[in-house]
Parts: sequence; structure tokens; C-alpha cells
Amino acid sequence: MQELYIKVPGTTDTSYKITIGSGLLPSVWPAVEAGFPKARLFLITDANIVAAGHLDTLLQGRDVPSYVIRPAGEPSKNIGTVVAIVEAMEKAYLGRDTAVLALGGGTVGDIGGFAAAIFKRGVPVVQIPTTTLAQADSAIGGKTGVDSSVSKNAFGAFWHPTAVFIDVAALRTLDKRQYRAGLVESVKHGLIASEEYFEFLERNLDAILARDPGVLETLASYNCAIKGRVVEEDPLEKNQRRILNYGHTIGHAVEAASDYTLLHGEAIAIGIIAAGLIEAELGLAEPGRLERVRTVLEKLGVPVKLPPNLAEDRLMDVMKHDKKAVDRWPRFVLLDRLGQVHQKDGQYAVPVSREIVEKVLEKLEG
Amino acid sequence: MQELYIKVPGTTDTSYKITIGSGLLPSVWPAVEAGFPKARLFLITDANIVAAGHLDTLLQGRDVPSYVIRPAGEPSKNIGTVVAIVEAMEKAYLGRDTAVLALGGGTVGDIGGFAAAIFKRGVPVVQIPTTTLAQADSAIGGKTGVDSSVSKNAFGAFWHPTAVFIDVAALRTLDKRQYRAGLVESVKHGLIASEEYFEFLERNLDAILARDPGVLETLASYNCAIKGRVVEEDPLEKNQRRILNYGHTIGHAVEAASDYTLLHGEAIAIGIIAAGLIEAELGLAEPGRLERVRTVLEKLGVPVKLPPNLAEDRLMDVMKHDKKAVDRWPRFVLLDRLGQVHQKDGQYAVPVSREIVEKVLEKLEG
Repeated sequence: MQELYIKVPGTTDTSYKITIGSGLLPSVWPAVEAGFPKARLFLITDANIVAAGHLDTLLQGRDVPSYVIRPAGEPSKNIGTVVAIVEAMEKAYLGRDTAVLALGGGTVGDIGGFAAAIFKRGVPVVQIPTTTLAQADSAIGGKTGVDSSVSKNAFGAFWHPTAVFIDVAALRTLDKRQYRAGLVESVKHGLIASEEYFEFLERNLDAILARDPGVLETLASYNCAIKGRVVEEDPLEKNQRRILNYGHTIGHAVEAASDYTLLHGEAIAIGIIAAGLIEAELGLAEPGRLERVRTVLEKLGVPVKLPPNLAEDRLMDVMKHDKKAVDRWPRFVLLDRLGQVHQKDGQYAVPVSREIVEKVLEKLEG
Repeated sequence: MQELYIKVPGTTDTSYKITIGSGLLPSVWPAVEAGFPKARLFLITDANIVAAGHLDTLLQGRDVPSYVIRPAGEPSKNIGTVVAIVEAMEKAYLGRDTAVLALGGGTVGDIGGFAAAIFKRGVPVVQIPTTTLAQADSAIGGKTGVDSSVSKNAFGAFWHPTAVFIDVAALRTLDKRQYRAGLVESVKHGLIASEEYFEFLERNLDAILARDPGVLETLASYNCAIKGRVVEEDPLEKNQRRILNYGHTIGHAVEAASDYTLLHGEAIAIGIIAAGLIEAELGLAEPGRLERVRTVLEKLGVPVKLPPNLAEDRLMDVMKHDKKAVDRWPRFVLLDRLGQVHQKDGQYAVPVSREIVEKVLEKLEG
């Protein structure tokens, strides 16, 4: 018997630029061409983005190879769509010198990022998020993935963008419900990392709801700085990155148990309140904090209680399959105080007894 | 407008162990369990491996979650098989704590490695190659991929194995044609990197064809050392790794133009002779070298001339789409001398005029 070792060389630090502005879209294409002088560009977007006029704004009359995801949204976020995109890229005779641009919300970013990750063993992707959710959260950090017929994000890859362009003017056309639900991730960022940011949100809710471009640019830079700092520390979600799952243990379960009739951010809003109630049970809550959080979420018009028709059995069942589950019972991310996540034995996802979770779910009933 | 930079942290060097032996298979499972004490193991193999008894030899009566690819071979090397595998893993309630074992030839390694790369954003894979091709070449180096309905390896990822186990005893059941074709990559390794290895092959052809375990272990360690050294230098195939494509420019074209009736190694044998003829045209050949190569390949019983019914138009057309093509004309890896690849301007894949290629193809006609 013989033994040999093959070295897998490490990589050096790289970085990508996030450009934030209002009315950026028309200048994005030339910027990408300048960044990839030898690449052939391929655009992925969806039917909603075309209808909202953002594709025209981006292309400025250019004729480029592209794929429009139809229908827009979660139903298309599956491996079948990725297969169709890769085959469209091949039929356009694209090779390993391709760079992909993903223009749209979270699903376009997830689909486009994953397609780029697996096309010919990986080509660069430029993320151009157009929703509150994608601009605050999903376009940054390199998580990509699509669903199988069995479960969500069964297929995926860590594939960091090469550049991100955030045009807050694109938010103007977003429908009200999605606009508001996507802001919940911003609230989460304040809660887990910055009291200053949370207070900025409290003070500027009216301007945010009026989609004031200046305030939205400030939001974008807080969001990118906070999420960026977390993913820099822990790109592969070994521990610290889990703080981004604040509100997500019960939130994800609520989202699934609602059969996705609740938007992601709406379910996370309920999950954030649930986390606050657990903190109160554990004596982690400073006076008045939960009420401040509830006030912000209510002003955003997102739910803060469970929908009346939600099957609690289903909720418990989904939680047992949570990705943070150990021995079929999930872990929770909790706060020590506003802007500071609780740790136990160096871990950010901590166990909470079933009794407390059941008690909190009862309190959450609408 | 604001600009922020997000750092993508580099990775440190890692390494994986290749264990080579004869009769290793029964001890592989305990070794993998010891290496992944907290993981749940999932096995991917194919119908041929089951029929040959290798699955039973590996499992030793254990009952483990697994997926058997049917039919074995190239027709199953597509994204549909990967989707079916991932869904089987989900139905077995496997999560991110899974490790995949891929037991089989090149297609099992490619499929299993790619499934591991994209299951829940990536889980470890242990490669257990059972063919001359996979043991010499495809199990090492981290290239994984599957075909689309449009072209080969349209989907893929660089995903290094966490461990490799090479049991040369598994070669005993391999059918003669596949056994011999897979040895062509060993010949290639000698040609591009080691005169000493090439001479070992020349001297030991009878023992190799008799599947002598001791000689096959020596082959495996030469192959792993040579391929390992190349992929360590250039894991993402920016330049030096291209030397592994020696014989592959015309070889791939022949393989495709034969509609895959020729095995990969058989087509590469023709491609190696073609490369030798090009070297002769360019004055790169030392006296007698091409004849030595031809003698070895003929003793292996692989073709050294184009099959009579091959459409030359089709051959030229495929070459224009070669991955090393620049301006729709491929590049070639050539030798300066036995064991030493030719470079031009620091590049290992160099241009060759269409006239020379056409002349060489004429000489190759059967």
C-alpha cells in the first residue's frame, strides 16, 4: 500500500466592489464591459423586470444575448430553469470567457448566480439587485441556489459576485407588499449589528416608505456594510454568519407552513417577534426593546402575529428539519441587547427548550 | 453614489490523501467513517459496479443510503441523473453534514463529484475509482461535470476530493477494451512529464496487460504523482494544466466525430499519434520517438489511425469549437522531447497552421 498527498493550493484574498446610487442602471453596462474587456456578456432577468422597464433602462438599446425567466418569482426558482439557462448560453456559443449579469430580485440573483457557478465549471457573475430584499440581503454574500421538487435550495453553491450594482431608483416600481416585506432584512441588520442603524430606521420610516432616494442609499450602505462584515468573517457559514439567521428559525417555518402565501420578509417579521419573545422568556431582553421592534414592523405594515389558519403541527414539523437542527430540534439566534447577538459556548445558534418555543408560539397566535 | 468593497477571504492550502493498494476496497468504508466521524455517508455507484461485485466488496454487508446509476456509462452522465441523485439524498433526509462516496469509473466520479459540489452548496466527496481511466486521470484533480442536451460538460464545478482510494484489484473485472483504452492516459503522462515512466511502461507492457497488481500499483503512483504535480501548480487550468490535454485536441474531435463509438482513450491514442506527426512537421521530434509511441499504443491494442468511416468535415467542425480555440481555430499541446512539453511565449497550448493539421489528418487515414 502506498500513500500520496495532493496539495490543493489556497487562494488569496480578493474583493468585489458594490456601487450604490440612484439612477445608476444606464451606466452599469459600460462599467461591466470595462471590467471584463475580454468577456462575452450574458444577461439573466425575469418577466417582471422587463415589464417594469428596468431591462430597457439597463440595455439602452443594446442587443445582447439574454434569458428572461418566466414566470417571475419563486415558482421558477428550480433546477429546470437553470438547465434552460445553461442550454441557452450554449446555443449562443458562449464559453468559459463569459460573464453573467443577473438583473432582478432575489430569485433572479439566486438562479443567475447558480447558473454562473456551474456553467463550464464556473464563470463570473455581476449582481444587479432591484428589490428591497435583494439589495439588502441576497445580492451580497455569495449564497446561490435553487429548489428541487423535494425542498428549497437543495442545489446551490457559494459563488461570490465579481461586482454588485445597487440602483435604489429601481425600487420605485416595486409593488408595495414586496417593497415593505424586503425591508424586514434591514430591520434585522440593525437588530443584530447596529443600534445606530436601528435608530436611523426608526427615525426615517416615513421617508423610507415614501421611497426617498437619499434615505434608501443610506439604507443600502448600512446593509452592505453590516452583511459584508459578517460574510467576510465567515463566508461559508461555519458560525458567525448564522447571526444573519436572526428571526429565521421560526420565520422559515412560518413561511413554509403558510405554503409560501407569506412573503419571506413577512414570515421573518413574525420570526423576529418570536425571537424577541424567547429572549424575554430567557431574561435577555432589555426593557421596551421588543415594543420598539414591534412598532417598526407594524409601521412597515408586515405581520407581527401568526396568520389564523396556520397549522401548528406543520410549523413544529418544519422546525425539526431546520438546517440548524441538532437531534431534530432547531437552534435559535437570539440577542443579548439591541445590536448584539447572544453567544453560548462560542456558538451563535443556541438551543431553546421546546416548552419555551411552544409558549411563544401560543403568544404569537393572531 | 457610494462605493464599498467586500472582501472574499482567501483559503489556506489543504491537501488530500491518495491511498493506493491491491485489495483495499474492504477497508475503505471504515477508513472513511474514521475520517468523517460526524458525517452521514451516501454512496453513488453504477449498475456495472454492482454487477462486478465491487459494491458488495466495499460495503461488506453494511446497509447504507445509496444511488445506483442506470444505465452505467456516458448516456447517464447528464444533469437529469444529478437531479435524481440530489432528490434521493433529500428523501434520505441528508443535510449539510453528508459526505459522498463515488465508487466507479470516470462517469461515476464526474457525476458523484458534481452532485457533491452542488448538494446544499457543497459537501465532501471521496473518490474510489475502479477503472484504468479513472484511476490514472479523472479521480484526481477536482474536475467534475455532466452533459446538457446541447454539449458535453456544460455543467460542472472544480470540486476536489477529500480523499481518494485506488484499489488496483478492482481493475480485474474491467472489460478488455475499456481496460486498454484507459491505459492511454498513462502513456500520455509518461510523454508529457517523465521519460523514466514511459520507459517503465515500455518494459512492463506484458505485465500491465496481464493486470499484475504490483506493476499496476506502480502505474497508479506514477500517474498520481504526475497528475498531482500538474494540478497543484494550476488547479483552475489557466495554463500549465493544459499539458494534460496532450493528444486531446484532435483526440476529442475524433471522439465526437465518431459519435462516441470510440472510447475516450482510443480517440486520445489517435490524437497522440496526430500530435507526434505535427511535432515531426514542426521539427520538434527526436529520431525514433514517434515509432516508440506507436509501438506502445499498438501493443495496448488501441487504434493509431482514423476509423475509415469518419467524416473529416465533422472533425474540422468539432475542432473549431474546442475549448482551447482562439478565433475558431484550436491550440495544440506538443512535445519538445519525450517527457517535456513545448512552450511558446510561456503558453503550453500553441497555434498550428491549418495546412499542417490537414496534412497530418491525411496521414492518419486508415
